[in-house]
Amino acid sequence: MERLLGFREFYPEPLPSKDAWSADARTHVFDQWRRVARQYGFREYDGPPLEPLDLYTAKSGEEIVGQLYNFSDKGERQVALRPEMTPTLARMIASSQRNYPKPIKWFAIPQLFRYERPQKGRLREHYQLNADIFGEKDPAVDAELIALMIDTLRALGLTADDFVVRLSSRNAWQDYFNSRGGKAEDTYAFFQVIDKLEREKPEVSAERLQAIGFSLEDVQRFIQEARPTEELGSILSNLSARGLGSFVKIDYNVIRGLAYYTGPVFEAFDRVGELRAIAGGGRYDNLVKLLSGGKVDLPALGFGMGDVVLMELLRSRGLLPAFQSGIEVFCSIEDEVRRPETLALVQALRDARRTVEYPITPSKSDKQFKRALELKARWIVQVDSAGVKVKDLTTRQERVMSVADFLALAGGTQGGLSTLVPLTPSL
Amino acid sequence: MERLLGFREFYPEPLPSKDAWSADARTHVFDQWRRVARQYGFREYDGPPLEPLDLYTAKSGEEIVGQLYNFSDKGERQVALRPEMTPTLARMIASSQRNYPKPIKWFAIPQLFRYERPQKGRLREHYQLNADIFGEKDPAVDAELIALMIDTLRALGLTADDFVVRLSSRNAWQDYFNSRGGKAEDTYAFFQVIDKLEREKPEVSAERLQAIGFSLEDVQRFIQEARPTEELGSILSNLSARGLGSFVKIDYNVIRGLAYYTGPVFEAFDRVGELRAIAGGGRYDNLVKLLSGGKVDLPALGFGMGDVVLMELLRSRGLLPAFQSGIEVFCSIEDEVRRPETLALVQALRDARRTVEYPITPSKSDKQFKRALELKARWIVQVDSAGVKVKDLTTRQERVMSVADFLALAGGTQGGLSTLVPLTPSL
Repeated sequence: MERLLGFREFYPEPLPSKDAWSADARTHVFDQWRRVARQYGFREYDGPPLEPLDLYTAKSGEEIVGQLYNFSDKGERQVALRPEMTPTLARMIASSQRNYPKPIKWFAIPQLFRYERPQKGRLREHYQLNADIFGEKDPAVDAELIALMIDTLRALGLTADDFVVRLSSRNAWQDYFNSRGGKAEDTYAFFQVIDKLEREKPEVSAERLQAIGFSLEDVQRFIQEARPTEELGSILSNLSARGLGSFVKIDYNVIRGLAYYTGPVFEAFDRVGELRAIAGGGRYDNLVKLLSGGKVDLPALGFGMGDVVLMELLRSRGLLPAFQSGIEVFCSIEDEVRRPETLALVQALRDARRTVEYPITPSKSDKQFKRALELKARWIVQVDSAGVKVKDLTTRQERVMSVADFLALAGGTQGGLSTLVPLTPSL
Repeated sequence: MERLLGFREFYPEPLPSKDAWSADARTHVFDQWRRVARQYGFREYDGPPLEPLDLYTAKSGEEIVGQLYNFSDKGERQVALRPEMTPTLARMIASSQRNYPKPIKWFAIPQLFRYERPQKGRLREHYQLNADIFGEKDPAVDAELIALMIDTLRALGLTADDFVVRLSSRNAWQDYFNSRGGKAEDTYAFFQVIDKLEREKPEVSAERLQAIGFSLEDVQRFIQEARPTEELGSILSNLSARGLGSFVKIDYNVIRGLAYYTGPVFEAFDRVGELRAIAGGGRYDNLVKLLSGGKVDLPALGFGMGDVVLMELLRSRGLLPAFQSGIEVFCSIEDEVRRPETLALVQALRDARRTVEYPITPSKSDKQFKRALELKARWIVQVDSAGVKVKDLTTRQERVMSVADFLALAGGTQGGLSTLVPLTPSL
């Protein structure tokens, strides 16, 4: 019973095959995402992975609707596996925002789904860090959000040599559109041409632009000049004050596909330019009002960062940490008579928050030693008549002490053994 | 666009309403689950939330099949949102077990789904800690798994006064069944009656037992006597050696509904007996062979612990931690001229892994102070011409120092500020 096409299994390292997905790498990325979001004062939320289909067809961009993983459930409800988090979030915010001081800063790590024709490397699910801010129109908030996006990538070891945030604005394009006499009803069609500019043949874009009264040459000149609007200038200087200026550039090629964006928009790309966008987002000041039926009107902005492109980038840069079992102490048993006392010691060490392994069934000494080495344990401990024999596997030094002394040494998360053995990180 | 019936939204604390689900409480429970599983040397894995329907209908217990959240997808595939993790896990193990030394100890925290008639408190999704061990038949492994189950509950603050693990065995019941001359074809029917004994009217159970040649009285006597088999005795003494004896008792009322169990089975219940089982599991030595089409034969055992009953229990015992924003430093801005320098300080502190908030837009001093108190920040820091003014909000003491000195104090995760301000836990 093979798994469905486009869905992943995540295995513990060392991986069983070259193309298996690593659960440890996923943990590493999620841990960094969470850590940095929390340092920025973002609070975690979550919503249902299954939603009424209307939540997406009614208000979202058309791009997403064609790829929905939707179906009719046993109760004849039209439902969909969530393709994005923003509509769920906007609903949650509309119903609960009175409870929270503004600006509201929230993040989530949802698994998202789309039903695409299967191709190599095109998955039907992925994880995405979503971070959003509600209740503030000032560009200082856009800067705070972009800074978070940059810092989550930096936390994973990426530098300004690895990626750049291309900053643009729906407002800049709207001004351009108006200044060239565009008609209101052509606005979204115009934005769609801009969105596809880099992927489409020039003559196709030129033709489409001409049909609504624009010239490709003029559009390209506008992109070339890349003059920041006042709003974008304010975001740039805010980021520069943080020392993050080198991570951002104005790039009007970016406009974002989804219909609901209203202001600054941005995407993070690898500098080599071999991958799709690592992350992207922007302002969507009207969506909460739309989704709440006009009841709640809150300015909003957010970004999403998927795990698939990011993982490719980290792997290609050698930035995924090497496998660690996390085992700190291996309690060996040479004489089976000592098993009950050893189990008591294992329990006491785990109670003291140590990560402990032991021979779960009788096994030869050399096999136990080999296993302790495989697990990269720092200490081998053995109960004997004198107390415990403690061997440091890095220095190969041995000491004998009483069980009580060893437990005192190993006890607690703050001191004791942790001053000798640094607590291993989650990976 | 309301959410679907039986699905939850998770909000940051303080919660917007009395019956809202807390994302912070979820994080707290997941963090403890992960921490203890890792201390036991379990490695994390994950699989797809959507699977081919056959994975469940072919091999699992009938109880689960009737409640499946299944549908036909756009490609006419019969698929189901996973109702349990074990079939996915058995498939992953069958395909990858050669890669890992035995016993293999794995855990996951999947979200699981079932399509039940909506009732108060009956959800259509929940989260479940799944921990499993493969490749070892010895009861010492059952004891290791049960110890993990007990310790995850202890990590959440529950004691032997709060819960008990009821230990039983399919083998004990099989021996009973054989000794009373049961016919092989009635085995599963017999197990089903035992499974429902506590919920069913005695006369109904009596009738069903009589139909296959058993007497309710004799069955009740067997349960009453609760004599441990050799295997169960071995598990009990292993747990006693760890000091966990008071958490377990033999209770043959437990047999577990799913068809695939083969040996010891167990369930954790609250002592008051007002809730459904907190966790449950057992041996399923044949499932890997069945699901791998006979290719891989590995003994196996595991347990699942859901979040819903557990959360109820923790709430009723007052064991959910109070809300903490996690903010360590609030950087206030009295004079807007200082904003760029303050942004630089915010960035430097976050780079040093501090959790930092600041007035994202200009705001009055008293409002900033109020906000810092709301967030329960430990320090308020303000950049001025002399350097930084640092105020400890617990002692209300103020100090002035250079920005460099403050950064040296705040820098790093090991020393500095962390010796004054303990790193706040994730919640």
